[in-house]
Amino acid sequence: MLPIQNLLQIDKTLPVPVYLQIANGIVSIIKQGILRPGTLLPSSRKLAELLKIHRKTVIAAYDELLAQSWAETVPRKGLYVSQCLPEIRPRAILPIKLVIDYPATTGFEVAEKKSSYYIPYIARKERLSINEGFPDTRLAPVDLLIREYRRFANYKFTSKFLAYGPSQGSENLRNELSRFLSDTRGLHVSPANILITKGAQMAFYLVSQLLLKNGDRVVVGDPGYLGASEVFENAGADLHFVPVDENGIDTEAVEALCKRKKIRLLYVIPHHHNPTTVTLSSVRRMHLLELARKYQFAILEDDYDYDFQYSSSPILPLASVDHSGQVIYVGSFCKIIAPAVRVGFMVAPENLINQATRLRKIVDRQGEQLLEEAIANMLKNGDITRHLKKTNKIYHERRDLMCDLLEEKLSGKLTFKRPQGGFAIWASYAAGISPALVAEKARQLGLLVPSGEKYYHEKQKRYDEVRMGFASLDEKEIREVVEILKRSM
Amino acid sequence: MLPIQNLLQIDKTLPVPVYLQIANGIVSIIKQGILRPGTLLPSSRKLAELLKIHRKTVIAAYDELLAQSWAETVPRKGLYVSQCLPEIRPRAILPIKLVIDYPATTGFEVAEKKSSYYIPYIARKERLSINEGFPDTRLAPVDLLIREYRRFANYKFTSKFLAYGPSQGSENLRNELSRFLSDTRGLHVSPANILITKGAQMAFYLVSQLLLKNGDRVVVGDPGYLGASEVFENAGADLHFVPVDENGIDTEAVEALCKRKKIRLLYVIPHHHNPTTVTLSSVRRMHLLELARKYQFAILEDDYDYDFQYSSSPILPLASVDHSGQVIYVGSFCKIIAPAVRVGFMVAPENLINQATRLRKIVDRQGEQLLEEAIANMLKNGDITRHLKKTNKIYHERRDLMCDLLEEKLSGKLTFKRPQGGFAIWASYAAGISPALVAEKARQLGLLVPSGEKYYHEKQKRYDEVRMGFASLDEKEIREVVEILKRSM
Repeated sequence: MLPIQNLLQIDKTLPVPVYLQIANGIVSIIKQGILRPGTLLPSSRKLAELLKIHRKTVIAAYDELLAQSWAETVPRKGLYVSQCLPEIRPRAILPIKLVIDYPATTGFEVAEKKSSYYIPYIARKERLSINEGFPDTRLAPVDLLIREYRRFANYKFTSKFLAYGPSQGSENLRNELSRFLSDTRGLHVSPANILITKGAQMAFYLVSQLLLKNGDRVVVGDPGYLGASEVFENAGADLHFVPVDENGIDTEAVEALCKRKKIRLLYVIPHHHNPTTVTLSSVRRMHLLELARKYQFAILEDDYDYDFQYSSSPILPLASVDHSGQVIYVGSFCKIIAPAVRVGFMVAPENLINQATRLRKIVDRQGEQLLEEAIANMLKNGDITRHLKKTNKIYHERRDLMCDLLEEKLSGKLTFKRPQGGFAIWASYAAGISPALVAEKARQLGLLVPSGEKYYHEKQKRYDEVRMGFASLDEKEIREVVEILKRSM
Repeated sequence: MLPIQNLLQIDKTLPVPVYLQIANGIVSIIKQGILRPGTLLPSSRKLAELLKIHRKTVIAAYDELLAQSWAETVPRKGLYVSQCLPEIRPRAILPIKLVIDYPATTGFEVAEKKSSYYIPYIARKERLSINEGFPDTRLAPVDLLIREYRRFANYKFTSKFLAYGPSQGSENLRNELSRFLSDTRGLHVSPANILITKGAQMAFYLVSQLLLKNGDRVVVGDPGYLGASEVFENAGADLHFVPVDENGIDTEAVEALCKRKKIRLLYVIPHHHNPTTVTLSSVRRMHLLELARKYQFAILEDDYDYDFQYSSSPILPLASVDHSGQVIYVGSFCKIIAPAVRVGFMVAPENLINQATRLRKIVDRQGEQLLEEAIANMLKNGDITRHLKKTNKIYHERRDLMCDLLEEKLSGKLTFKRPQGGFAIWASYAAGISPALVAEKARQLGLLVPSGEKYYHEKQKRYDEVRMGFASLDEKEIREVVEILKRSM
């Protein structure tokens, strides 16, 4: 018999399981023509002995060969290399072309989607980075997520969640969210009022496609979150800007605008306005609701930062005191779990949710059900609440350290107001200090800092404000970062 | 000291880990006011003894209390209930309202998205179901997916994949796909020609939004896949139909149409046309490419079924012999892994991929990176190829069994041609047998069967054809299903 053991190499340090190494090894020997069709393979006991491994591992390898049709069992004789070997792979009908032959452009015209705000994704090379205010991915509860996924593998309900599911999102998640929103935000809605989306981004998109026609007027704060404005403009919106002060967007300016023009939609970040981190005051919230009723516009309330509060209690959403169905409330787990975990939600009256669900079905049919079920269970068993408590404590400490150090080391060079929550500080550089130059110097020292150009819709004469994310830096990194900033000014 | 052990209930059979049961139990005792702020907690050694559990478990519980600020350490004394207890939850500023108070409709008008094809998701109650042709979720490689997720938890690269990523999709996945498409389909493209989407559905959506203006003409086969037509109509398309015979869509009819009218886009399923399961012949493929060049229209090639072939080798995609950039190729992992795993891709010249990437960023920013990385690795290590081999073998057997039984037991009642691959059989009922009546009878016997009404765009006088999915039924179920069908005719 063939000394098969000499042809099989097993390496227990490889990530590929041993049984697969054996199965793949045998397939490769068959493919090379060394083991011919109809050859008897050694018994599992024999091969286990030869290879000095457990017999069960060999049995698993043989099962794999059977499943892939490389081997066949002959009753009372043993396992043979199949007489009819599986087709290895379809052969190209044309000789292999070089990639370069693929057409460079289409043979028909393509609509140009222009976007002045579009910033392509760039992988960071710098060791340290002050970002625009993201959570620390090192704190993401990956273990808990994986525990949920593992649960799926063990239970029968996997099949259910792996088949097509509802375009409105997981029923369990909508039930749990209904409870969570009521407990944390005084927002008492039924699961029928909730649509699960891919992050807040998809909620902006669906709302824009449903509510905006070409030329419809949309009000946003300036400075503001350009990522949302881009979605409104893509839907044909005519953007109108109102100023932002320490109490949030200026609702007097909104009223003045409403008196002159028909407004369709107003976009507002009620907690920690991006970029300036201010919270919309209760008085202005009531004023906004009154204006929405009077002038019949919709409010898109982007409360992505509600769950991160360090100095004071959050103010309940506009949606929780809206009796006339004017407010569309948007939230997300992207900040709570991790930016790459793309699960968000929108809350609105049922007729809008139904239309948004129809459109969502056309856009991408449904969300990631397994992920939605995992998050539902993490809400149910309290994991999300515990994780929020932990991370709030950590981010609170980081905010304090960053603010203390900036005040101590960079006094006179920049000013800021301690943010009450969220992930970033809004800092003004002193006269004569250019954010772009600081960014350039810091980059040479291995630190990425925003250069201050992406916050205003209307072009400024000069930029002297920068949004500085602190949440994704640990204590040591914050100390380093402030040191480098100091050397860059 | 308080007999704390009597107040704590530990149940090792619960899914909640014991340390969390202890931590949660203590929090609950604190909340009830039984343990007051400033109370000394028993030492971990002491509590472990009292509860008869390992001391490490108690330490983990105490760490949790510390992390959540319910307890604080006093050096050289021990652990105390915190003097300042964490805020339990923000209180509603208004008395709790009933859900029923939430506005039933919006206070502004919402665009009605009508869709004649829209079929809301309905959870199945019947025990057995002949679906429209889906893979068997019981065969989904969930274990392999979970193995990949677990890998993320162990390695440093988790942070990278948890942060914001590229809107074009995971670089690793695009690299692996470029290799996979070349190996399996003779489609030699660079990763720059690939956009990762949420299933084939999102590719249809992005292409429609970029290529179609109101009134643009789109050609589809009739009968055809209404799910795609719905997307074209949503973008304002004017649908034109061509017949489908045993060689796929009738390209002579396409040519006749092109001579009369300007066509913008043609949608084709080259393998196992949905619903009729026919494969587009090589001659017609060449004819289509020639027509696309001559009349300057785009071809949307939906090759979702390429990897499931039982009787013959697949024919290479139109995209692999397209030299003028007319073809947009779409594929998906939803059939390979599971319908709920929403990862698909489109392949096209770079200018179209760039525009589609910009639009995708606006729609939902990016895909599920962890999932994309998991699939990239499953392609790399051969898991996908092995899984395809296994499932092809199983589906092949199921096709044969289902066809054999239908021929044997229902001879004279229905006719069909054995499909060469895919997940379904296209059957014509004999004159006098109504699919709707059969569906109704079968439903009473616990079996869901399509009633034959969702395949034609143009209303038919009568329906006598039904698409019967066999892939998600195992041997026993196939035997039962045919038996019930027989009793229903």
